[in-house]
Amino acid sequence: MNGQPAETSDPAARFNAALETLVPRYHQMGLRVLKLSGRHVIATVPLGGNENHYGTMFAGALFAVAETLGGALAMENFGLSSYYPTVQEFTVQFRRPAVTDVTVSGSLDAATLDRLSTELEATGKTAFELDTTILDADGQTVATTHGTYRILTRR
Amino acid sequence: MNGQPAETSDPAARFNAALETLVPRYHQMGLRVLKLSGRHVIATVPLGGNENHYGTMFAGALFAVAETLGGALAMENFGLSSYYPTVQEFTVQFRRPAVTDVTVSGSLDAATLDRLSTELEATGKTAFELDTTILDADGQTVATTHGTYRILTRR
Repeated sequence: MNGQPAETSDPAARFNAALETLVPRYHQMGLRVLKLSGRHVIATVPLGGNENHYGTMFAGALFAVAETLGGALAMENFGLSSYYPTVQEFTVQFRRPAVTDVTVSGSLDAATLDRLSTELEATGKTAFELDTTILDADGQTVATTHGTYRILTRR
Repeated sequence: MNGQPAETSDPAARFNAALETLVPRYHQMGLRVLKLSGRHVIATVPLGGNENHYGTMFAGALFAVAETLGGALAMENFGLSSYYPTVQEFTVQFRRPAVTDVTVSGSLDAATLDRLSTELEATGKTAFELDTTILDADGQTVATTHGTYRILTRR
């Protein structure tokens, strides 16, 4: 948060700086957003520091990196000054052990974003679903996730 | 792991000592098993160190404390020398923000344990489901979870 234009103008860098305050433990895990726009987000978490005894990534890190995507998309579209996102339900299907860093991406389509804006304007709250696929460094599917998020008005 | 009888004879203390090696990040979160038998497990994770920007517990800590229960029950029943447990699918329904430390318990009935033993003996692998309810310090339900775990033979 040093105000350098190159850093603050990039949504991913802004999100990562915010994450250190928003969810310190996720930042400590090395969880980082690599790309962020209103429609699409890509995040990563390293294997290093997040291994279990078997040398594979512990389940909680896979949950974390995917769960973060919905919050990042909500923040990028609607900010945190008037609204805040919360995760309502989240399912992870673990497909194979992760033995490398992993990346995960998620997208919201234009129609969904229009609906969210309309509902927030009309009722002060809304909800959306997000599916993700977590990939290892070889492009193999490590896990798939399905999340439901709510966006609420700050009181 | 100092070999003091009082510590090593208690399954919960043994599990917590093992967790530091098995999943270091969970141990760092302050996640601890409070009671452990082959049939029942209770675990806790503190709010302190696991808050988000809103002063509530971040979603990943709730996932972690509940997800650990299946592994703890599998370890207590079958050990880690011949078999190892993995989580296959896990769903969390977030009911209300946690603003205190939380506790969570899970149980396996005798018929399920008999089936697991029989299947491990016959095929070297098995699976079980576990439901949990995460409670705050006031006994309010913070989240409910449903997990599917596999137990596999070490190769």
